[in-house]
Amino acid sequence: MTSELLHPDRLFPVEPAVRQVAREIYQTIKALPIISPHGHTEARWFAENLPFENPSALFITPDHYVFRMLYSQGIPMENLGVPDASGATELNPRKIWHTFAQHYQQLYRATPTRLWIDHALHEVLRVSHSLNATTADQIYDEISHKLSTPAFLPRTLFERFNIEVLATTESAVDSLTYHQHLNQSEWKGRVITTFRPDSVTNPEHPDFQQDMQKLAELTGQDPHNWHQYLEALRVRRRFFAESGATATDHGFPTPYTTILSESQCQRFLTQALEGTLSAGEAEQFRGHMLVEMARMSLQDGLVMQLHTGSCRNHNAHVFDRFGMDKGCDIPRPVNFVEGLEPLLNDAGNHPELTLIVFTLDESTYSRELAPLAGHYPAMKLGPPWWFHDSPEGMLRYRQQTTETAGFYNTVGFNDDTRAFLSIPARHDVARRMDSRFLADLVCEHRMTLDEAIETAHDLTYRLPKEAYKL
Amino acid sequence: MTSELLHPDRLFPVEPAVRQVAREIYQTIKALPIISPHGHTEARWFAENLPFENPSALFITPDHYVFRMLYSQGIPMENLGVPDASGATELNPRKIWHTFAQHYQQLYRATPTRLWIDHALHEVLRVSHSLNATTADQIYDEISHKLSTPAFLPRTLFERFNIEVLATTESAVDSLTYHQHLNQSEWKGRVITTFRPDSVTNPEHPDFQQDMQKLAELTGQDPHNWHQYLEALRVRRRFFAESGATATDHGFPTPYTTILSESQCQRFLTQALEGTLSAGEAEQFRGHMLVEMARMSLQDGLVMQLHTGSCRNHNAHVFDRFGMDKGCDIPRPVNFVEGLEPLLNDAGNHPELTLIVFTLDESTYSRELAPLAGHYPAMKLGPPWWFHDSPEGMLRYRQQTTETAGFYNTVGFNDDTRAFLSIPARHDVARRMDSRFLADLVCEHRMTLDEAIETAHDLTYRLPKEAYKL
Amino acid sequence: MTSELLHPDRLFPVEPAVRQVAREIYQTIKALPIISPHGHTEARWFAENLPFENPSALFITPDHYVFRMLYSQGIPMENLGVPDASGATELNPRKIWHTFAQHYQQLYRATPTRLWIDHALHEVLRVSHSLNATTADQIYDEISHKLSTPAFLPRTLFERFNIEVLATTESAVDSLTYHQHLNQSEWKGRVITTFRPDSVTNPEHPDFQQDMQKLAELTGQDPHNWHQYLEALRVRRRFFAESGATATDHGFPTPYTTILSESQCQRFLTQALEGTLSAGEAEQFRGHMLVEMARMSLQDGLVMQLHTGSCRNHNAHVFDRFGMDKGCDIPRPVNFVEGLEPLLNDAGNHPELTLIVFTLDESTYSRELAPLAGHYPAMKLGPPWWFHDSPEGMLRYRQQTTETAGFYNTVGFNDDTRAFLSIPARHDVARRMDSRFLADLVCEHRMTLDEAIETAHDLTYRLPKEAYKL
Repeated sequence: MTSELLHPDRLFPVEPAVRQVAREIYQTIKALPIISPHGHTEARWFAENLPFENPSALFITPDHYVFRMLYSQGIPMENLGVPDASGATELNPRKIWHTFAQHYQQLYRATPTRLWIDHALHEVLRVSHSLNATTADQIYDEISHKLSTPAFLPRTLFERFNIEVLATTESAVDSLTYHQHLNQSEWKGRVITTFRPDSVTNPEHPDFQQDMQKLAELTGQDPHNWHQYLEALRVRRRFFAESGATATDHGFPTPYTTILSESQCQRFLTQALEGTLSAGEAEQFRGHMLVEMARMSLQDGLVMQLHTGSCRNHNAHVFDRFGMDKGCDIPRPVNFVEGLEPLLNDAGNHPELTLIVFTLDESTYSRELAPLAGHYPAMKLGPPWWFHDSPEGMLRYRQQTTETAGFYNTVGFNDDTRAFLSIPARHDVARRMDSRFLADLVCEHRMTLDEAIETAHDLTYRLPKEAYKL
Repeated sequence: MTSELLHPDRLFPVEPAVRQVAREIYQTIKALPIISPHGHTEARWFAENLPFENPSALFITPDHYVFRMLYSQGIPMENLGVPDASGATELNPRKIWHTFAQHYQQLYRATPTRLWIDHALHEVLRVSHSLNATTADQIYDEISHKLSTPAFLPRTLFERFNIEVLATTESAVDSLTYHQHLNQSEWKGRVITTFRPDSVTNPEHPDFQQDMQKLAELTGQDPHNWHQYLEALRVRRRFFAESGATATDHGFPTPYTTILSESQCQRFLTQALEGTLSAGEAEQFRGHMLVEMARMSLQDGLVMQLHTGSCRNHNAHVFDRFGMDKGCDIPRPVNFVEGLEPLLNDAGNHPELTLIVFTLDESTYSRELAPLAGHYPAMKLGPPWWFHDSPEGMLRYRQQTTETAGFYNTVGFNDDTRAFLSIPARHDVARRMDSRFLADLVCEHRMTLDEAIETAHDLTYRLPKEAYKL
Repeated sequence: MTSELLHPDRLFPVEPAVRQVAREIYQTIKALPIISPHGHTEARWFAENLPFENPSALFITPDHYVFRMLYSQGIPMENLGVPDASGATELNPRKIWHTFAQHYQQLYRATPTRLWIDHALHEVLRVSHSLNATTADQIYDEISHKLSTPAFLPRTLFERFNIEVLATTESAVDSLTYHQHLNQSEWKGRVITTFRPDSVTNPEHPDFQQDMQKLAELTGQDPHNWHQYLEALRVRRRFFAESGATATDHGFPTPYTTILSESQCQRFLTQALEGTLSAGEAEQFRGHMLVEMARMSLQDGLVMQLHTGSCRNHNAHVFDRFGMDKGCDIPRPVNFVEGLEPLLNDAGNHPELTLIVFTLDESTYSRELAPLAGHYPAMKLGPPWWFHDSPEGMLRYRQQTTETAGFYNTVGFNDDTRAFLSIPARHDVARRMDSRFLADLVCEHRMTLDEAIETAHDLTYRLPKEAYKL
């Protein structure tokens, strides 16, 4: 069954000799534990260990990869269970499932979403039929039933997926209740947090005022005072690190960095809290805060991640009705070579710092990111991100970065997902594509099979563990 | 004969298993009717149905793909029959043909021009020798003779090419005489116009003043008055639609859009007619007019096409001597994510609108266009355009857009040509390259052969018909 | 031995039919003489013909490709023999060699550096073991010994490498002592200079003031006077041409060009010598000087090369301690379509001018450079440069430029190296990759094998000789 719906050679190159080498490489990494150092699953799932709700709540409503494609073809979001500001939406999960099933085979053809969901359906949930309008009901019932059994509880799946460590992402002012709970529990699964301070370092973040207030309450520091504000951030970083975090993450519109004088910083902080910063000043404030974060990472050892280049909430109509993260964040051109210069000059020559940089602008792979990562000791290249976490995207990433940055200035794979059931699929796609890329190099006599196998192991397991200090 | 000069497996992948699948897919779409929803052939040819002049007038003089390459290698344009401002040029078509034939094999090697002309020579015209300096005379005579026979009259070729519909492009103030003539004729061939209003929406267009005058005469509206100006455009759109048009086309330097106040629009319109708009103001006027065009499309149902990103007439020397469209239009970087934001926010959430966007900047495929088309219900992705209407260009297009936008936010192929004889060649190249791309997906077990065949049919026939409402 | 460490089929495509065709094409060009029209080896080596120092001085210390990768992984530059401002560095070449050998197999995996050094070790130096920590000593001794033998003297290697002509690059105020010496020697090897005037045309060049002074001394012209300054440049160009140069080279941050009035030029020149030009004014001065250089090339026939788009000395810390060319030059986005417009309009329509343009921004290949080179008679496309002089980089170059510019607006390969022993490796990689690209075209029936063989010969030998007037 699986061999028809999920072919064992999927994604491998077609030429028989290369395919054979790709298979050999893949066999050596296929069963390695999953290292998931960056993502957006919820610690609550593993703390509470309650059954997942229903197939639609699992696959459709929370996954903007899924509903953006349906929306692009004219299907209203409210038909997909996405609640609008008034809370109104389709509430019948079976009806939502039908809408999805009807379009699944055609609209997602050749997309990574199709690869992930097929894997989740046929490998994780062991569904034995293709999903379409005819099978929708039967499959809905089958999944619903399975979700109610112990074998599909979050912790059981975590273990079945062979996850060695899973990182979630929490705001700097989060209480980390569920992580604390997990830390004190008997369960052996390792679910760690990541320090994400955007709502208190980006004056344009919708929660900035509210979260600065929380920051003050949580730390006893006065966020109106530049020194106390920095100290408050240090306190929270320490709390996150003590709770298990090994990394921070920063999601800003651009990779612009700058170094401001202390008095300038105090002035901008005051204005930020008054709500009187211009867009240009907010950019400067963010740019300086990235440098401060790098400096703090040098002190406390937290790995620093930088995700930039997304024009968030491009569609004002969708944002006003449905809020953030609804599929209308669009990449924009970015300039790392000028943007990161101040930060890299300040902290980039320290091998003790690890700065992992991600991009949505593939034109920067060969032009900017690989040359920078191939020079600065602190800088590493994050894996292909978001729209580029796909077979072709992964190939372009390796083809355009490897010759300049090598393999050892990269950090393995990130699944970056909210969809827990897609985790094994996503790591499997990455392992297959790395095997494929390496198999080509072996067959073109650019490396030996032994070297390829060592590299594959490093990309899958050693590099992410080392880069993220796991 | 054909099998040597035009190999039946040309452009297919080399690996035998993939080639076999590519052949199987191609066989199912090879003979489908041609849908040509965007191009620059002349309705006059089909209305008058007179023989084409001579081989040089057919292949060389009107085709900037052809003479740009010769010019780049130091051959003066006046040797190629391109008339300069004084009208002076080489007038002997046989001599022009010789110049071309002498360089044909080498200079056009591996270019799409070579593919198209080989197809026209050996498949359409059934010439049985390679074109070079030695065979030039004989082939010239052979083609000349054939062009004078009934089998090579425009209407006969149209039918032989199995064209179901062919769209031409006319200025908003065109009388559409030949289309009217065709609409009233007995001939069954469907040749429709496309509404191209650039000369009355772009104040920097060389014909702006003259065509605004014509617009007034044709519609009885006063173009100095903003409301009457818009009404005049509506009147002309209606006239085009009634004459058979299903689409508009807009060719601007950039995809910048904006929404201005009514009083600002009136002010810019007044200045435009006085010739006192600055370059920046003209950009704003164009940007607002694109939004007006989208709004009118929502009302009258005409599909909207947007072609931007060409720096026209880069070579002032050539422009001054030989005029527009002489091979020195060069692509420039563009920004769709910011440029289209106002228009998409205004009209992009309406599934009733179809906005087809083209690019000359391939870095926007994965970064901007696929994410936008994969979200906004109105937006679709036009096929690879101009310099990118080539085998490698088509592969890059599919590789860089499919995983994010899917196949069903694209609209099939456009030949966009002035060279009537190249139409079957261009569609054949597109069908071969789509078969190739799909064959790879089948052999990598990302879709079944049945899915690939359905997709190929949709890309070739169903999607262009639906997208352009044909 | 060689067949294991350097596989005879390396870099060829894997599919057996294509590999066979690639082999056939490669066999016809493999042994052609090397034309090296652009690079940074030293004329002194061939003038003095003394033995090379030691393995580390040959492979590591002068090669920023090599030490940048080690530095990126946290190995201090002073451990690699790179002297800092105080002159302090590791002085023991054997110890440096050990550091390198220890990381060689892993860090350079799949990089072009690995291809070049493997070729130099196993083909040029006939070392029969892989380089690693265990073999480091033995190989160090073996190379040291060989370097001291007559077979490895610079002139002997030059002849063994079958170099027909090798161009070096010298500053406009260089005395060309070693080239004069070579011109008068009995030795038949052709080593020519290239005129590189950046230090007297770029007011922001660190040597500008000093070299303008030298320019005055060498030519007797007053560089404060615009006309005499231009005359001084003409005098030096003549001196270089008489010493053997056939080309100039210009390395500026951007491809911006402009045409200023004479009085403006005089004003900027005065300010440049006073050190009072702003950054924007310096850009304008450089932009105008490129146009003057094109005009002089039209007069004296020197081929003009333009290398732009590198953000030099990005890492201030490394620059301050170790100086220029230490691996921290990072590419930046450039705009050729607007940047080159003034120059191309001024001189680009003259087929007598040859302007060879290089890029570090691969997004410009299909968008800007191929369309420009496929139109302007003067403009040719330089080969993939620097970070892109690699197998994947070469494939992208051909795939993204050929369909628009053809093969005959390109100029063959440049090795652009400081590492003499890498020259045969680099040309061999280029020949293999061209064979591979052409073999694909043959097997996809886009050209015949005869055409591919002719094209391969032209790319390897005829085009560089003709383009550089060698």
